[in-house]
Amino acid sequence: MNSPGSRSERYKKGEALLNRIHGTHTGDAIVSALEDVCPDLASMTIEWGFGEIVSRPGIDLKTRQLVTVASCVTLGHAKPQLQAHIEGALSVGATKEEIVEVILQVALYAGFAAATNAMLLAKEVFASYSTGDN
Amino acid sequence: MNSPGSRSERYKKGEALLNRIHGTHTGDAIVSALEDVCPDLASMTIEWGFGEIVSRPGIDLKTRQLVTVASCVTLGHAKPQLQAHIEGALSVGATKEEIVEVILQVALYAGFAAATNAMLLAKEVFASYSTGDN
Amino acid sequence: MNSPGSRSERYKKGEALLNRIHGTHTGDAIVSALEDVCPDLASMTIEWGFGEIVSRPGIDLKTRQLVTVASCVTLGHAKPQLQAHIEGALSVGATKEEIVEVILQVALYAGFAAATNAMLLAKEVFASYSTGDN
Amino acid sequence: MNSPGSRSERYKKGEALLNRIHGTHTGDAIVSALEDVCPDLASMTIEWGFGEIVSRPGIDLKTRQLVTVASCVTLGHAKPQLQAHIEGALSVGATKEEIVEVILQVALYAGFAAATNAMLLAKEVFASYSTGDN
Amino acid sequence: MNSPGSRSERYKKGEALLNRIHGTHTGDAIVSALEDVCPDLASMTIEWGFGEIVSRPGIDLKTRQLVTVASCVTLGHAKPQLQAHIEGALSVGATKEEIVEVILQVALYAGFAAATNAMLLAKEVFASYSTGDN
Amino acid sequence: MNSPGSRSERYKKGEALLNRIHGTHTGDAIVSALEDVCPDLASMTIEWGFGEIVSRPGIDLKTRQLVTVASCVTLGHAKPQLQAHIEGALSVGATKEEIVEVILQVALYAGFAAATNAMLLAKEVFASYSTGDN
Repeated sequence: MNSPGSRSERYKKGEALLNRIHGTHTGDAIVSALEDVCPDLASMTIEWGFGEIVSRPGIDLKTRQLVTVASCVTLGHAKPQLQAHIEGALSVGATKEEIVEVILQVALYAGFAAATNAMLLAKEVFASYSTGDN
Repeated sequence: MNSPGSRSERYKKGEALLNRIHGTHTGDAIVSALEDVCPDLASMTIEWGFGEIVSRPGIDLKTRQLVTVASCVTLGHAKPQLQAHIEGALSVGATKEEIVEVILQVALYAGFAAATNAMLLAKEVFASYSTGDN
Repeated sequence: MNSPGSRSERYKKGEALLNRIHGTHTGDAIVSALEDVCPDLASMTIEWGFGEIVSRPGIDLKTRQLVTVASCVTLGHAKPQLQAHIEGALSVGATKEEIVEVILQVALYAGFAAATNAMLLAKEVFASYSTGDN
Repeated sequence: MNSPGSRSERYKKGEALLNRIHGTHTGDAIVSALEDVCPDLASMTIEWGFGEIVSRPGIDLKTRQLVTVASCVTLGHAKPQLQAHIEGALSVGATKEEIVEVILQVALYAGFAAATNAMLLAKEVFASYSTGDN
Repeated sequence: MNSPGSRSERYKKGEALLNRIHGTHTGDAIVSALEDVCPDLASMTIEWGFGEIVSRPGIDLKTRQLVTVASCVTLGHAKPQLQAHIEGALSVGATKEEIVEVILQVALYAGFAAATNAMLLAKEVFASYSTGDN
Repeated sequence: MNSPGSRSERYKKGEALLNRIHGTHTGDAIVSALEDVCPDLASMTIEWGFGEIVSRPGIDLKTRQLVTVASCVTLGHAKPQLQAHIEGALSVGATKEEIVEVILQVALYAGFAAATNAMLLAKEVFASYSTGDN
């Protein structure tokens, strides 16, 4: 989508942040999942999403992850993203309690159905995450 | 809905918090707007919403307001609530920059149409708020 | 869209039901609002919506209006339709209390923002309706 | 969340109603599913949702279930809740025909995709329910 | 729902178009999936959806499929319909590249979560479709 | 957000396309509306949205506008964007009939409430546009 030169700086910045939040090989996983269908969507996610938006100062990474969780709970249908961002929130220092509070707060706006489904997904994420001891 | 005795403690706690976040007479305004149609919805908002959810520890009030802003941006149609929670975020210490960052972050999940409309609403709120100098 | 012959029976049945629920000139109003842009959408609304779905037995008209109110509250953005169906519910015998209960019940699934906005719209509808004494 | 004393009355009322609508052990199931992640969400669902909203008079339980089905069909993403409320509607006396009519009516507002998916879920619920002979 | 005579013409037109877009036995599949729960929903889909809307001139079938894909991506929760309409778009001459472009364009309005999930579904459809060599 | 050098090429490409689709001064209008609140959102819209997505080949501009209209109709709440994209569709050669067909097609997925509201908005756009004779 860009010349390698212009891409690489933003892209590398985005990729580094993506890996910091979502784990070391996540950038590769997104790239490989999308490479046969739309590699530019992977590039845009990394370069724009992470390299230009998520990397902005103004709010700390933990708050950024928590508001992203709130948005995904509200959408209702974005289960893979909700899971990834609950994990990401834990990775950048949010506690389970904080994530639970976010979901509970959002229940008032997105409804208790969306919040309950999100809470049960959070429970699964917490269970697999806590083997690594959060 | 409840006996006055059991209500009053939670209700008063909720009302105090509502007034702290949204301004002194907001509790009265909600009560009077709904009193002819469904006073129990006002009571539930104050007693449950504020008295039992918003008042929980676990995340600070500023983070709570920011995730609420994120949820309202994502809904797309909840304009009065989005306006109220942008104001509320400012009241509990969020800066304009932090609110702007939340809306921009949510653009990735809720789309740029919802985010742009939210940003223009934030601009209006900031304009009227900054006469009080934020 | 159809030959006048095949249309007329369903169309007339739909139009009669539309006028019964929403008031005598509503069919004409829908037809005239859409006639310059897409008259077939008016025909489909009357012939299909009212002539084939709303006219089905299986649930009575009052229940049908109440579930339609629930759906419009949940959508959040369909304000003209929500208003029309609150009016329609009153016209086929629902009480204000029943409509209020439906909105409150839906708050649990669609969130308190959507429900509050719907309740304040219901209040307006009730106010203008009760001059005709409900 | 509350002192056991203040909770117990509303909670017990909510739990009894939950069990009446959704089956005897459902209250326990919700409590145990959420106990490791957010037991207060279970309490709120039972105490507020069932103890204070679902238990209100004003509309009968069957109508209340049918409007809840309408809201869940409209959300589109709340499959576990839609299933639970179709079952709940049958439990409080709604017929399969009434539930089918509700879903068909909602198709006009939530779209035929949401309605078709809901209808196929209803078919599954009806199939497992009718061994108990509805 | 209709007398066989009045139905048959629109119905046959709709069924022929449905089979053209979605494959020869799809009409039968929809009819048989819904026949135990709401056969009229199958009839309406075929007779109205395909016989009266999809069969309209004004836009060609390929464009019609692409805008339907856009709508289903935006809904977020309509996975079976999104899959069916990606397949349908291919059947009426859309290329994989065109479908990918539609999903990417919609990312700006429906968010990158919905678009990414849609893109990965498109990838699956393309994989199974290309054995037949698109 | 970028060094002026790296931005200017994509930005200028995006701005030129934005002005081609939405009218000569639209780029300036977006920039000035957002400049006091979040100028980077204007830059991203122009640089990413228009410079990198809308400017892609693969589908022609008319089809791109029509799928954008479909997405905005489906969102239900994005009225300013729906209006802008109906105008944009006309600007790049879509006829009123094509836009009407898109909205009608989307009715099946987004519901007749969203479609009717969109159709009435299209009627307004067509009325103001046709003084320039479309």
